[in-house]
Amino acid sequence: MTTLHDLPTPSLLLDLDILRRNIARMAQAVARHPGVILRPHMKTAKSAAVADLAAPGKGPITVSTITEARYFADHGFRDQLYAVGIVPAKLDAIAVLNAEGNQVKVITDDLATARAIAGHAGVLPTLIEVDVGEGRAGVAPDDDALLAIAAALGPKLAGVVAHSGHSYAGRSPAEMEQVAEAERAGILLAARRLRDAGHEVGIVSVGSSPAALYARHLDGVTETRAGVYMLGDLFQAQIGTHPPDDIAVTVLASVIGNYPRRGAVLLDAGALALSKDRSTERAPRDFGFGRVLDLEGRPIGEAIVTRVHQEHGEASGPGLPLDRLPVGARVRIQPNHACLTAAAHDRFHVIEGSRVVAAWERVNHW
Amino acid sequence: MTTLHDLPTPSLLLDLDILRRNIARMAQAVARHPGVILRPHMKTAKSAAVADLAAPGKGPITVSTITEARYFADHGFRDQLYAVGIVPAKLDAIAVLNAEGNQVKVITDDLATARAIAGHAGVLPTLIEVDVGEGRAGVAPDDDALLAIAAALGPKLAGVVAHSGHSYAGRSPAEMEQVAEAERAGILLAARRLRDAGHEVGIVSVGSSPAALYARHLDGVTETRAGVYMLGDLFQAQIGTHPPDDIAVTVLASVIGNYPRRGAVLLDAGALALSKDRSTERAPRDFGFGRVLDLEGRPIGEAIVTRVHQEHGEASGPGLPLDRLPVGARVRIQPNHACLTAAAHDRFHVIEGSRVVAAWERVNHW
Repeated sequence: MTTLHDLPTPSLLLDLDILRRNIARMAQAVARHPGVILRPHMKTAKSAAVADLAAPGKGPITVSTITEARYFADHGFRDQLYAVGIVPAKLDAIAVLNAEGNQVKVITDDLATARAIAGHAGVLPTLIEVDVGEGRAGVAPDDDALLAIAAALGPKLAGVVAHSGHSYAGRSPAEMEQVAEAERAGILLAARRLRDAGHEVGIVSVGSSPAALYARHLDGVTETRAGVYMLGDLFQAQIGTHPPDDIAVTVLASVIGNYPRRGAVLLDAGALALSKDRSTERAPRDFGFGRVLDLEGRPIGEAIVTRVHQEHGEASGPGLPLDRLPVGARVRIQPNHACLTAAAHDRFHVIEGSRVVAAWERVNHW
Repeated sequence: MTTLHDLPTPSLLLDLDILRRNIARMAQAVARHPGVILRPHMKTAKSAAVADLAAPGKGPITVSTITEARYFADHGFRDQLYAVGIVPAKLDAIAVLNAEGNQVKVITDDLATARAIAGHAGVLPTLIEVDVGEGRAGVAPDDDALLAIAAALGPKLAGVVAHSGHSYAGRSPAEMEQVAEAERAGILLAARRLRDAGHEVGIVSVGSSPAALYARHLDGVTETRAGVYMLGDLFQAQIGTHPPDDIAVTVLASVIGNYPRRGAVLLDAGALALSKDRSTERAPRDFGFGRVLDLEGRPIGEAIVTRVHQEHGEASGPGLPLDRLPVGARVRIQPNHACLTAAAHDRFHVIEGSRVVAAWERVNHW
């Protein structure tokens, strides 16, 4: 039996019970909305084994890179939305996937790109990206560009897509609900304008984990995308995407130095193994570069990772028992931001309790 | 001929001319000190092809992970220093490498670990880590623990090692020189105390790129370690490790959105492709998440990457010509911190001018 004492450090751990719980919670939340499907975003987990749980039966998924699109297609996930603005140079790769029988949809908010898509010989179903308040990408729902892009796409127009990443600024279910409703109103305005102009708008896609959970209703929407909910992290726990204990992903680390004079231990998980994400800096509770747990997954006092170098992380804080953490002792670190921490590792070591039951590859890079 | 228009985006570029220049500059700086060898730290480049330039003739190198140690040994680099505090569980892997004819040295500042090393059957030459003011790892040069650890190591004691990472707080050659001299004084005190107690201290190893460049003299030191100087970055340029233009590594990105209303473009290089390192935040000039260059490597006005999402980076700033950056246009991004940005990519695309001449693998992960 492999245990947490047998793995190399640093390693990325994935708690299967928590993963299943997080996936079930989101599935239930989306099931409240008849006619709305969940199209889980695989950018966080980047793993076909996780996709088999989050999108059972090779269901529809969302991806963030061409490399993910290829990998998940090879694992049988044919219905994909590549949810990052497409550029003409990437159309060939998508067309090749679709020529193999996949249905990878692309997105754009750009007229010249829409023309390139229309002029391409390949099958390229395209959603127009609509900005519903996030201010990242997309045309405004009332912008004339919306109609011009749709006209350029012609029969390749497959729908509209929005992202409510600004839900992460919310701090209560009421605020999340408000963002979700504004997103819905914005994308429905865009869909109505397109339909009024004679276009068919099959897909109305919204997304973000908090909005998917807290939307009061999603009338008119056909699908919702969410990704980080599967793994969870310290930031999502604080904005209510999942209960505080339901962080499925942790980094296993060894103590490599013990310094009673400054009340700190050094770990072999640093900036690379944890990432330099500091998203809890603006959350109610700042966990530095991560929260320190024992091997059973229980917080060790108030200890956090206070600073990181490339391969060194320094942990300190009230309740850190230095005498019980000699060099070679092992701890686990909960991440601020699961997407970034997981991307530093090439596989998940899957655990059930303290048993290591599998290794699941991740499809990193581009 | 492959050009920057043919590569996928995002991609990591390595400018061979700049790399060679940076390597030559450091080699010359260290050659000022008779009897001192350069043991380049491969944690930044993580590439055997780069090691062949920085440590010609399969010379001595420094590594930061067991995976690097194995990879570089397999590429003929037998003399290595694994410069992160060792834990007992990692001794077997080192002993296996050394049984194959390599000389991988380990470091510790811990008495119990020294005893584990002494009791291990393998060949495990060990340096005692000394804290010369950085406050990260190591015993103080005047600490009694130094002698206790040496006594425990017995014949496995191979020398002493220090890290002057606090040189990064310096902002002038005079400050760097001061840190380098304090490092030298500290490690020589440790070496003298060990020798006075009857121990042989073969290796006296110091390190950090700024200290290696600016040390006035290194009498008593046998080797210096430095790594980031090879690639360079926006932070190192500002503290004087290399001239501002000598940043060898950039991220090639495509424009995926163009937003005249807010004077910004979106790029397909975000938090994963660039890292979330913000080290220029405390430098004289803050470059956000990176500086925007054209394909020839010239800054585009004052444009920087102002915010990042997982796969999106937003670029803006004075002099960003939105009309010449349509969706599909390409730019290059100089990183804040080369070690972290490079680690997000599995290979370097090596360029000479605008020609892509090779792809060099990187050994990431653990």
